[in-house]
Amino acid sequence: MDNKTRLKPELLGGFRDYLPVAMIARQEMVLKIRETCESFGFLPLETPGLERSSVLGTDKDEFKMQVYRFRAGDQDVTLRFDLTVPLSRVVSANPELIKPFKRYQFGSVWRKESPQAGRYREFAQFDADIVGSDSIIADTEIIVLMFKTLKNLGIDNFVIRFNDRKILNGLPAYASFDQGKTDQVLRTLDKLDKIGQDGVVNELKSKSHNELGEDGLALTERSISKIVDFLNLKGSTQELIGELKKLFCGVSVSEEGIGECEKIIENLEYLSIPRENWRLDLSIARGLGYYTGPVFETTLTDCPEIGSVFSGGRFDDLITRFTGEKIPSVGASVGVDRLLAALEKMGTIEKKVSTAKVLITVIDQSLSPKIMRLAQNFRAAGINTEIYLGKEKGLKGQIIYAAKREIPFVVIIGEEEDRVGKLKLKSMVERKEDLLLEKDAAKIILNS
Amino acid sequence: MDNKTRLKPELLGGFRDYLPVAMIARQEMVLKIRETCESFGFLPLETPGLERSSVLGTDKDEFKMQVYRFRAGDQDVTLRFDLTVPLSRVVSANPELIKPFKRYQFGSVWRKESPQAGRYREFAQFDADIVGSDSIIADTEIIVLMFKTLKNLGIDNFVIRFNDRKILNGLPAYASFDQGKTDQVLRTLDKLDKIGQDGVVNELKSKSHNELGEDGLALTERSISKIVDFLNLKGSTQELIGELKKLFCGVSVSEEGIGECEKIIENLEYLSIPRENWRLDLSIARGLGYYTGPVFETTLTDCPEIGSVFSGGRFDDLITRFTGEKIPSVGASVGVDRLLAALEKMGTIEKKVSTAKVLITVIDQSLSPKIMRLAQNFRAAGINTEIYLGKEKGLKGQIIYAAKREIPFVVIIGEEEDRVGKLKLKSMVERKEDLLLEKDAAKIILNS
Repeated sequence: MDNKTRLKPELLGGFRDYLPVAMIARQEMVLKIRETCESFGFLPLETPGLERSSVLGTDKDEFKMQVYRFRAGDQDVTLRFDLTVPLSRVVSANPELIKPFKRYQFGSVWRKESPQAGRYREFAQFDADIVGSDSIIADTEIIVLMFKTLKNLGIDNFVIRFNDRKILNGLPAYASFDQGKTDQVLRTLDKLDKIGQDGVVNELKSKSHNELGEDGLALTERSISKIVDFLNLKGSTQELIGELKKLFCGVSVSEEGIGECEKIIENLEYLSIPRENWRLDLSIARGLGYYTGPVFETTLTDCPEIGSVFSGGRFDDLITRFTGEKIPSVGASVGVDRLLAALEKMGTIEKKVSTAKVLITVIDQSLSPKIMRLAQNFRAAGINTEIYLGKEKGLKGQIIYAAKREIPFVVIIGEEEDRVGKLKLKSMVERKEDLLLEKDAAKIILNS
Repeated sequence: MDNKTRLKPELLGGFRDYLPVAMIARQEMVLKIRETCESFGFLPLETPGLERSSVLGTDKDEFKMQVYRFRAGDQDVTLRFDLTVPLSRVVSANPELIKPFKRYQFGSVWRKESPQAGRYREFAQFDADIVGSDSIIADTEIIVLMFKTLKNLGIDNFVIRFNDRKILNGLPAYASFDQGKTDQVLRTLDKLDKIGQDGVVNELKSKSHNELGEDGLALTERSISKIVDFLNLKGSTQELIGELKKLFCGVSVSEEGIGECEKIIENLEYLSIPRENWRLDLSIARGLGYYTGPVFETTLTDCPEIGSVFSGGRFDDLITRFTGEKIPSVGASVGVDRLLAALEKMGTIEKKVSTAKVLITVIDQSLSPKIMRLAQNFRAAGINTEIYLGKEKGLKGQIIYAAKREIPFVVIIGEEEDRVGKLKLKSMVERKEDLLLEKDAAKIILNS
């Protein structure tokens, strides 16, 4: 085959593979998240990657996110961009599901954003949501789940920052601007971490179109100054709550939100969730329009630049799109790939290269049935066993293979070992060899 | 919201959700397959759902499978239709991967076929492949892996049927037809299970276009009669091998294939893989063009109508498309959804409805911090614990919830229990209640 006819083995731009070392770590991470969710009684769910655009809402002009939308036959379809909208479809389509319905889901989502460092167009999320509960215990449980999940992943330095959309929904009344501008103002506040207070003020003031083509907010000096007062509230949690109560006195929607935050704080304190791991943060708004109550974000203290790794909130109206009735819900989503990238960057992840604990070499092909039987016995004893299947005919090459794969033991059976009914067990770590009976070798490998 | 503006929560036709009961079973199945693969030393890999059409080969006119292909910006993309072609891309793009490269991968694939009972347009596969080995041990290991996987899933009644494409590649020489017709003849033989011998003969004879628009095969009476002789070979494995040797005497490619089968048979017998679980079956051809050596299919004896649940073969040339060099490979793929459907149909699967072992009721809202702390303690002790978060205010309604969810224990804490520092533990199975200290309740739940 000449070069012209050869295909380039190229990935699409913005997409990635998980090669084994990264994938072993990712699988362990996902399993731990899953176990944590199950310890709270969440149940697994799986939905398709492809959905009707009408169901996802991507057929609407006002849909701002870039997605993979196309025609398949006579249907307008989109690759899912999150796991929450599909959940709302499932709940609506299956009214027999007992509520509250606590479900977790792990899967890929697709967004056609311009790729940046650490951001991909296909990435995995792990979501946990409680559907059909308006209890503040549910909101607290989601925060406790976030805390427990990260602890179980061996992460200690993180802050779960929360706020309440109801407090923010009082901003128009408090700062005297048009109610219709609320969503756009909140999206601007959400950028505080990225663009700083000056950047936020500029956007609030701006009269020109933004990057989404919306009119500039053009808030008055007075409105902006009141918003800045709000953003600059500082102090302990107790002090913050006190200040908020003064600021939003008489704005009933905000008062309701402040009350919810107080209860969450009371619960977290009672549960002794360490103070360094959570904080009321008034700048958290969460860009997505569907949140209606408490909202959550999580920053890794040692890797803040990666952004929030675990986010969510209460969405009481999302399911109403289908059912017409309100089904109050709250949940959060781990950015699995982003979290993994952060842990890799911080060097927190133990690199595991191999699944096999022993490699059986094949020097004398005539012994291959015996070698396969030995592998069969080892596996039955619970030892992950690989038989050497490559091109190297000699022992040296096969041992180098085991070393590269970081397989801790090598078994050698040649004519001589076979004759005396034993095998040679080489420990790659201790660099020693012993002539042993099969069962004694198995014991050593199992106990290592 | 009126009916007009309400959205229909509809899935796309040919797509499905996995609701919790099915999903719990599916996850357990996938974990067992994964553990079996790891016991052979296979390593995990993950690739994107979306690939360049040129990489998947779906941009070619001769590509016959219906797939989801579309334009994304200036790129021609396709949702992957299997996990083998992406594997070949990964191996080509990452020459540093140590070979042999034994990888497993679990994931969705998409095919735009007309949906039938038990067949979906998005379905999950679990693949295991050995890349970079031409050893017959590798082929044997794949069959042993298939055997072990099904046994570990609790399935006893199955037959792994195998054949060798090299034997079949000798058919033009043996039955005197044009070499160029081989692929089409093999695809016809592959339908033997479905259309019977008469159907096969008709297709071999036919002069009209087939459903793919190809010219009819129009084989001569003599060619067809020789193929029928071949298909009708019967007898024990030893007798079959003997007959094959006579039939294909002098057809060197077939002789090579017969030799490979002999070795596989010898290995399986030496490893005491039960005779009822495997069989040399000359009608197995595997539709896909890329197989070059041994090919495998697996039928469930108690549910043959569902077709093959675990299939594969040797594909020595697939990676050549990218690299120009031959990288001999062999592997197999579990149709996870199809296998699960079969087990459900056969009633082999134990239905698990819940992940929680205990439900803590919430009757007195003022006790909710204490209830959350109790949940925290139970979870720390390894007990999956759910707090009741729904609308039912009374005990009866909350116990009915636990019963519906099949949660085996219910904890009740009211004012009185709280005063004496105890809790009421209700066993839903034994239908009895005890007033206990927290730690004693935890013990009972853990030991149940």
